[in-house]
Amino acid sequence: MSAEIICVGTELLLGDILNSNAQYLAKQLASLGIPHYNQTVVGDNPERIKQVIEIASTRASILIFTGGLGPTPDDLTTETIAEFFGVPLVEHPEVIEDITQKYARRGRVMTVSNRKQALQPQGADVLPNPLGTAPGMIWQPRPGLTILTFPGVPREMYRMWSDTAIPYLKSQGWGEKVIYSRMLRFWGVAESVLAEKVGELLNSTNPTVAPYAGKGEVKLRVAAYAASEAEAMAQITPIEAQIKAIAGLDFYGADGDSLASVVGNLLTEAKQTLSVAESCTGGGLGQLLTTISGSSDYFQGGVISYDNQVKISVLEVNPQDLNQFGAVSPQVAEQMALGVKKLLKTDWALSITGVAGPTGSTETKPVGLVYIGLASPDASLKTFSYNLGVEQDREWIRQLSSCHALDRLRRQLLLSSKAK
Amino acid sequence: MSAEIICVGTELLLGDILNSNAQYLAKQLASLGIPHYNQTVVGDNPERIKQVIEIASTRASILIFTGGLGPTPDDLTTETIAEFFGVPLVEHPEVIEDITQKYARRGRVMTVSNRKQALQPQGADVLPNPLGTAPGMIWQPRPGLTILTFPGVPREMYRMWSDTAIPYLKSQGWGEKVIYSRMLRFWGVAESVLAEKVGELLNSTNPTVAPYAGKGEVKLRVAAYAASEAEAMAQITPIEAQIKAIAGLDFYGADGDSLASVVGNLLTEAKQTLSVAESCTGGGLGQLLTTISGSSDYFQGGVISYDNQVKISVLEVNPQDLNQFGAVSPQVAEQMALGVKKLLKTDWALSITGVAGPTGSTETKPVGLVYIGLASPDASLKTFSYNLGVEQDREWIRQLSSCHALDRLRRQLLLSSKAK
Repeated sequence: MSAEIICVGTELLLGDILNSNAQYLAKQLASLGIPHYNQTVVGDNPERIKQVIEIASTRASILIFTGGLGPTPDDLTTETIAEFFGVPLVEHPEVIEDITQKYARRGRVMTVSNRKQALQPQGADVLPNPLGTAPGMIWQPRPGLTILTFPGVPREMYRMWSDTAIPYLKSQGWGEKVIYSRMLRFWGVAESVLAEKVGELLNSTNPTVAPYAGKGEVKLRVAAYAASEAEAMAQITPIEAQIKAIAGLDFYGADGDSLASVVGNLLTEAKQTLSVAESCTGGGLGQLLTTISGSSDYFQGGVISYDNQVKISVLEVNPQDLNQFGAVSPQVAEQMALGVKKLLKTDWALSITGVAGPTGSTETKPVGLVYIGLASPDASLKTFSYNLGVEQDREWIRQLSSCHALDRLRRQLLLSSKAK
Repeated sequence: MSAEIICVGTELLLGDILNSNAQYLAKQLASLGIPHYNQTVVGDNPERIKQVIEIASTRASILIFTGGLGPTPDDLTTETIAEFFGVPLVEHPEVIEDITQKYARRGRVMTVSNRKQALQPQGADVLPNPLGTAPGMIWQPRPGLTILTFPGVPREMYRMWSDTAIPYLKSQGWGEKVIYSRMLRFWGVAESVLAEKVGELLNSTNPTVAPYAGKGEVKLRVAAYAASEAEAMAQITPIEAQIKAIAGLDFYGADGDSLASVVGNLLTEAKQTLSVAESCTGGGLGQLLTTISGSSDYFQGGVISYDNQVKISVLEVNPQDLNQFGAVSPQVAEQMALGVKKLLKTDWALSITGVAGPTGSTETKPVGLVYIGLASPDASLKTFSYNLGVEQDREWIRQLSSCHALDRLRRQLLLSSKAK
């Protein structure tokens, strides 16, 4: 028993729209515990739609269609399904009535082409569409096979899914056991390294543990199939504890946490403040910190010292050091952090200076070379250097630089709080 | 002859990620004129992947895979393809070398699991991945069937597509007549208003004119299907001129232009400099300006005055005005702009202060209220106010605020250059 999602629409094949319907339905199926192994996209073409039905109906027991229910000639889903199973179309007067009323409310008159939307295969039930004029169907064309159809308009489909499809699927015995999951987040460790460390856990079956990589971070999704959230958590919690113990400081948060939110929580706990001095990131680190509503409790602000003159005049970086070591150097990173800490009178300060590229590199300072400075409450200074890769693009280097800076502060805050 | 897109990944079946890769590839195929009738998503399961290959290889002549090329045990695409066609895997020493070097540059050592990424079916060519460690393949397992594989990470896939796949497909005779297009960009006008203004042009067939809305801007895509770029441009250029005349100052650029790049060009032409003072955007305006490589020619830097104390001590905002009018006021926006212009000694200065929400609003200062200050070379001041909507989320309000600030400077720079 499994479900297959079939999205009908030439606009998907042209790349004109993103297939967000497939993602929505996939999530819904997962949360109801309905197995789902394939998604298919096909254009508004009867022969190809039939071919897809033929394949899908041999490997799945629930076929979920979106798209192709509209009034225009290229909306072919309903009639093609009926044709495939050799069943005539029947007009549903209650749908004609519903469309007429909806049009009247908008001061319009129903067109001839809308009549088509009242047709369903003989024996199919109408799946009502409260928001639009295209209803779907719930139909068992043969024992062991159920077909549900939805329009392609996302908000209409979402409403029809929650109003009618979920109660229907639950009445069929689905959704008694559902999938609950935790997304564990890591920074400063490669996916392959983390995967080797957690080793055998990746082969466990319930809960499952699966690695994901994205935007410089690594994630492990721990998912349990259970009858209740409490039961799922009872399975997830010990695995999560094991993973955290293995990962140590590389683990930074779970689910909706971000490096910025975690740093914010640590600063709030410590009742300490932060300022930033940014060169190559040009404000990106401050931008990231202030994604958190309420960050004004600990984030005071900063200086974007993009030009060297600003480093000298506002942050009091030594012009001789700038000359001797260059703007991208540990010496300047240190002085930037110290300068902004002093100017904004904060407990902590972070600085970033680097070569974001594609221009501005030298033989000794390649694209991707970044220094991060960290000034602590006791005014002690640390610098960290990164080679983020000459082949990487500007925005990637800038984004990673800001995240690494937050990660360095996070680790330092954790060590400081432990030391107390 | 047609292509089929096959996306491999259980995370797609769980709805954890949106299938943006399918949209990207679909667009690319359309622009090369390669027919494309089906997209399939399948999980990390060898038997089901084989079933998909079996079906797809009977109806398409080019199979394009994304996902499942990573180092972990659930990355199965390459070995499953080889198995399906009954061909052994062969290790490519140049890939081992490439991975080793990439790891070394980041100060890491290649792991055993990475070796897997150097394996390709015997006879397949390596499709290089300049940005990551997972290369793809280009392979003809039998006459009339070509397989291309890509990692699931979008930026790696895009780069591999444009660097290697496009030249390869063109060498096979694809893309002789292709779609060329210009994306015209507008700011400060609603999509419906612009659509009404350009009116009949939206119904033209070659070139076509289609409106798109996204992230606060409005775009018109002018697309022509032609045998050469020159031929296409001969069709596009007169339409583009018509649209520009209709849109006036609301038109800001085309294709890869951004508000930041356009402002940068205008400042460079005028040989003038800019600084910023940011409150609610927390560095986002500076971040946006410095997305442009070479922005150091005109962008000096700025002050992130998130806390009021920073507005007073660094930007010399009058504490009484802060008290009387509040931080989100035209008075404070003006003084912030003037303060940073003076501190950083620039020709122009922009400031932003607003309520990004969801907290921090008052009865008279709702979420979405934003003031932008603009100080001109002659030290004259202007402020602009926006109500970006109480129902909008924090990041949207912050992003729009930065763009509106750039747009105000753009319009002022255009007027100044005309006045000369």
